[in-house]
Amino acid sequence: MKHSLPDFPCGPLDIYRKKASFNWKEMAMFLQDEDELALKQRVFWTLENDPIFARQPGEDLSTEKMREVTFRRCKQLFRYNFLTQEEVMANPWRVVVLNDCLGMYDPSLSAKYFLNKGMFAQIVANTGSQRTSHFLQDIEDMMTFGCFALTELSHGSNTRAIRTTAKYDPSTQEFVVNSPDFEAAKFWVGNLGKTATHAVVFARLYTPDGACHGLHSFIIQVRDPKTLLAMPGVMVGDMGKKLGQNGLDNGFAVFSNVRIPRENLLNKTGDVSPEGHYITPFKDPNKRFGASLGALSNGRVSITRMAVVNLKLALTIAIRFSATRRQFGPREDEEIPVLEYQLQQWRLIPYLAALYALDHFSKSLFVNFMEFQLGMMTKDQSERQAELGREIHAITCASKPLGSWTTQKASQECREACGGHGYLAMNRLGNIRDDNDPNCTYEGDNNVLLQQTSNYLLSLLDAKQRDGVGIASPLETVDFLNNYEGILKTKFSAASVEQCMDSAVPLAAYKWLVCFLLRESQRRQAQERASGKADFEVRNNSQVFFCRSLSIVYIEHTVLQRFHDKTRADDTPPALRPVLRQLCALYGLWTLNNHMATLYQGGFCSGWEPADWIQHAILNLCSQLKDEAVALVDVVAPADFILNSPIAKADGELYKNLWSSVMQGNKVLERPYWWTEFTSDKPVVGSLRPKL
Amino acid sequence: MKHSLPDFPCGPLDIYRKKASFNWKEMAMFLQDEDELALKQRVFWTLENDPIFARQPGEDLSTEKMREVTFRRCKQLFRYNFLTQEEVMANPWRVVVLNDCLGMYDPSLSAKYFLNKGMFAQIVANTGSQRTSHFLQDIEDMMTFGCFALTELSHGSNTRAIRTTAKYDPSTQEFVVNSPDFEAAKFWVGNLGKTATHAVVFARLYTPDGACHGLHSFIIQVRDPKTLLAMPGVMVGDMGKKLGQNGLDNGFAVFSNVRIPRENLLNKTGDVSPEGHYITPFKDPNKRFGASLGALSNGRVSITRMAVVNLKLALTIAIRFSATRRQFGPREDEEIPVLEYQLQQWRLIPYLAALYALDHFSKSLFVNFMEFQLGMMTKDQSERQAELGREIHAITCASKPLGSWTTQKASQECREACGGHGYLAMNRLGNIRDDNDPNCTYEGDNNVLLQQTSNYLLSLLDAKQRDGVGIASPLETVDFLNNYEGILKTKFSAASVEQCMDSAVPLAAYKWLVCFLLRESQRRQAQERASGKADFEVRNNSQVFFCRSLSIVYIEHTVLQRFHDKTRADDTPPALRPVLRQLCALYGLWTLNNHMATLYQGGFCSGWEPADWIQHAILNLCSQLKDEAVALVDVVAPADFILNSPIAKADGELYKNLWSSVMQGNKVLERPYWWTEFTSDKPVVGSLRPKL
Repeated sequence: MKHSLPDFPCGPLDIYRKKASFNWKEMAMFLQDEDELALKQRVFWTLENDPIFARQPGEDLSTEKMREVTFRRCKQLFRYNFLTQEEVMANPWRVVVLNDCLGMYDPSLSAKYFLNKGMFAQIVANTGSQRTSHFLQDIEDMMTFGCFALTELSHGSNTRAIRTTAKYDPSTQEFVVNSPDFEAAKFWVGNLGKTATHAVVFARLYTPDGACHGLHSFIIQVRDPKTLLAMPGVMVGDMGKKLGQNGLDNGFAVFSNVRIPRENLLNKTGDVSPEGHYITPFKDPNKRFGASLGALSNGRVSITRMAVVNLKLALTIAIRFSATRRQFGPREDEEIPVLEYQLQQWRLIPYLAALYALDHFSKSLFVNFMEFQLGMMTKDQSERQAELGREIHAITCASKPLGSWTTQKASQECREACGGHGYLAMNRLGNIRDDNDPNCTYEGDNNVLLQQTSNYLLSLLDAKQRDGVGIASPLETVDFLNNYEGILKTKFSAASVEQCMDSAVPLAAYKWLVCFLLRESQRRQAQERASGKADFEVRNNSQVFFCRSLSIVYIEHTVLQRFHDKTRADDTPPALRPVLRQLCALYGLWTLNNHMATLYQGGFCSGWEPADWIQHAILNLCSQLKDEAVALVDVVAPADFILNSPIAKADGELYKNLWSSVMQGNKVLERPYWWTEFTSDKPVVGSLRPKL
Repeated sequence: MKHSLPDFPCGPLDIYRKKASFNWKEMAMFLQDEDELALKQRVFWTLENDPIFARQPGEDLSTEKMREVTFRRCKQLFRYNFLTQEEVMANPWRVVVLNDCLGMYDPSLSAKYFLNKGMFAQIVANTGSQRTSHFLQDIEDMMTFGCFALTELSHGSNTRAIRTTAKYDPSTQEFVVNSPDFEAAKFWVGNLGKTATHAVVFARLYTPDGACHGLHSFIIQVRDPKTLLAMPGVMVGDMGKKLGQNGLDNGFAVFSNVRIPRENLLNKTGDVSPEGHYITPFKDPNKRFGASLGALSNGRVSITRMAVVNLKLALTIAIRFSATRRQFGPREDEEIPVLEYQLQQWRLIPYLAALYALDHFSKSLFVNFMEFQLGMMTKDQSERQAELGREIHAITCASKPLGSWTTQKASQECREACGGHGYLAMNRLGNIRDDNDPNCTYEGDNNVLLQQTSNYLLSLLDAKQRDGVGIASPLETVDFLNNYEGILKTKFSAASVEQCMDSAVPLAAYKWLVCFLLRESQRRQAQERASGKADFEVRNNSQVFFCRSLSIVYIEHTVLQRFHDKTRADDTPPALRPVLRQLCALYGLWTLNNHMATLYQGGFCSGWEPADWIQHAILNLCSQLKDEAVALVDVVAPADFILNSPIAKADGELYKNLWSSVMQGNKVLERPYWWTEFTSDKPVVGSLRPKL
């Protein structure tokens, strides 16, 4: 099927659409292939034409109702089965595209669908064996519904302190699972609140000899699939309303002597014989840990992408609004779009640049992860495969924070940039922000994760300095550190504002920043150690201003480097290069501007010009890109039905669309049903005034 | 009545409470007088003991229901009548205290109550005359309910472009009010959605000769108080769900030939004679504008305070959580409170310092505003009164942005610092963030308002340079600019980390920053002007990095200066000075750290040490203050019932309280009512798969 992109309706956005220097369709087809465009269109079209996915303007659903409609929609996705397993095997990127589409419609729905069919099924497939494979078919047919239960009420980040126990009883060949108390209740488990029948539960495994073998995962049936009632010994329930993603039912479970068959242990990394002996394929427990490090990156790769998807939604809304909202003007009788103001450009357009940079990055990261996963599937035991796992771990432990925080800040800025109308729930900016928010927390708190990245970088530097080892990582994100000493001697060398408007300038500065913060973090740790601190304290006391900043500049450099290379790649169409290069330069300069103090402090910059030129370059680029901004969001915007924001429809009829959505709300013009509360039983003022 | 502060229950927070260097009750009684403490206790006690104010753990009310319960609670406030007019006259600060208390319970409720009894009534009282005073008694008795209608669908910031018209018809001695089209519908009006019977409506006044006399305000009855049905010619309704504050019914109104008596014109600044002649007490229309400038600050004074109140809630939750949540530790068998981590301290404790600085500032600002209002009431025509109006306008146009943004960022940081539990709605951090969010927008978009402040500062500098006028403002916030040239020659002069731990250091740096950004903003505008730009563009193109930053450093300086003075005042008890000085130094250094690049660029700082010492000083202060943090939030925390956050009760029983609140939720352990959706009618996978 040859895919064709639809034209936009004529309207107020045309002013900007006509000014764009590039053809948005050319950009869309450059960034996505035929297959991706067709899948997107198919999913969007299907949802729009199925009443199960219909929404009311300004609807106000209770948490209970949201859980219901999301389940019904999820069930309908089984019927649509947009991607067969063969289609996924042929091109795994399709899963991401489908997830993007569903996430654009409602992140709760995509989460609910993929926690079951993706995460639960993958863990069973990847860490179980033949004896657990029957669970997979049941998932496929929705005979069961799965979830992933690691976090407990009192332990999240510190997974080693998880307290649920699974003790093996050889007399019945079962594990007996217990929550020692309510603080060890499994908590925050997506799908567990209302629908899950089975859970992958992490528990400390004990053999009959009393030995504890650490955390293992078990499949536990928590509800009866025929009745959705809890299984004996399982207390399972719904945690209630969250700040967002309320279509997803997060829940808890407490286990009291729950017996499960021995075969329900996911036994890839350790097993128990029928008699009760512990068996592990790994001689070295560290290697066991290492094997799972790369695999754990899966969630963070996805979250990095989810944040990009949310960013697309938020910016589409704020840019289209800003291009059609007019306020003030040079003359009394003429108002100009707020996008014409320097301030509004500076608030929004750098995030648009971040969107293009992170969109490209998240795609390239997926390719990297696929390479790693292929190695896992082919049981690649090479050093390169191990190194790839470490590097991807380091990247994703920083890209998840960068992506989620960028979108968090962007969605708040977009909300404010749309003024009061941004605060109206139907315009969706609040939902986007709230649905994105947990990306900062799950699969590892952002600040905690960043420590992993700096540990990786510091260990590379240590090895280089101690053993003179050259630094060469599979994805080459750290190879420039070979020239560590040389880079530390470099200085800011651009000679004008114009020269700064090139991504090579921030890229060079970032290389220096990574080296500088690496040196300083190492020095800081050495100082702490010299003063007699133990490792635990040394690490904790070197985070703020040092290791944390190091991880952030490392990932910003990586994102910028990849986007920079893309804008210079041979296959990038000449007509698109200018705008892509502007976006790349803006992204680099804008993020770099947060580190100017360090550049000055460390002597990379000095004097008046560097900061001045960088600021001028940022403003010039914003000004140049404001005429491209509408076309740039047209490239990433979903269909109006999916975007679901009256102030941001593709026709640009801001007020007509907003007004008609408000008027179609429920009981908009009716007096409230409690009107007699106002008209009768008037309060006697002060009648209840407390006596003093 | 002698007020006594309650003791806290023993529990896990005692570890920190015992470590505090000061007595929290002494601090509480120093920051608030007997009268304030008694009023607070009375309000909190009353709400807790009245079932109308009761809340369910984890309750999930629809927007419609929230409007209802908030109205019922509002009505009950009439019965309690916590403050009589005499009590307010005797001590106007009491209104703020009452508003704080109600805002801590629910910002929607305080907004609903004060928009009617405060804002509507004040505007009628201050801008009307004898002939409109009868509206005031009806408000007092809740016979009517008022609101304030300025913003229209297509115009907010640009109030001069408001399009609603009021044409005088001498034949009936009425005004005929019209909305020219739906884009001129009054929009975003608090209380108008469901309950308002009367509105102060801003419209362009036309006399029969066809002359337009600009915006004036009129009292228009929009609903019948006996039925709550819309009046003829008025289409009035509810805008629907917002991101927060959903107890407040924001609404819209469209007027079609609505006739109101001539007397309903609020005629302080302009009137129309029965025959239709326009009469104004002001010869100079600019003076009319000037007269209202100070008065307009009222809303921003309140919002600055509201942001502080929200900050108190957010930090109480995050600090108590952090003091009781344990995760990881130096040994396997020992976990330490997350408040012990440098990173967590750095995330939260600077905001605690900001809270103390802004709390003091908002109080002092209220005193300033009272002085101005007294001048208004006594019809003070002095130059000082006019200057006071200008200065307060400049201060509040920056303090509202500073306060609202600080709380916005703090509440997001608190949410994240509480991990997943911060994302659970019942723990309230989402509500606090969402209820605070509109503070960034209403009464003027933050970014737009900041332009007023820089205009003020630039005009002072211009006058000084042009006419050699000395700078002396009534509140002395700009007097240091007299030494503008001298300050620009100063340098960073602290000689160690220890010396930096004194608020005098950031204070001196801020004085330089204000002068520097003033000079650079002026230069930037001169450059723009020299390149032929018109005023409109000159101003727009000098905002980012210049005028906007100028306004921010000016207000940060003002807040810091006042707090600095307070910590050194004679009446500050010696036992409290050390901790207050630490807070003050931390606030100053932490905000200053955002401007380090400018300090280096402009030559105030150079070399390695300044940034390094400031960062060390910040971390040292955070570390010193972590043992004070629990006591510092005890001082500002409301009663548990009001705080309404299971993870932050005063007893510190984090998990017990959270678990019991979750378990008391609605239908927590029940299967969903739609369970058969899961168990029967299983989807046939792929049955609806689109044919390709």
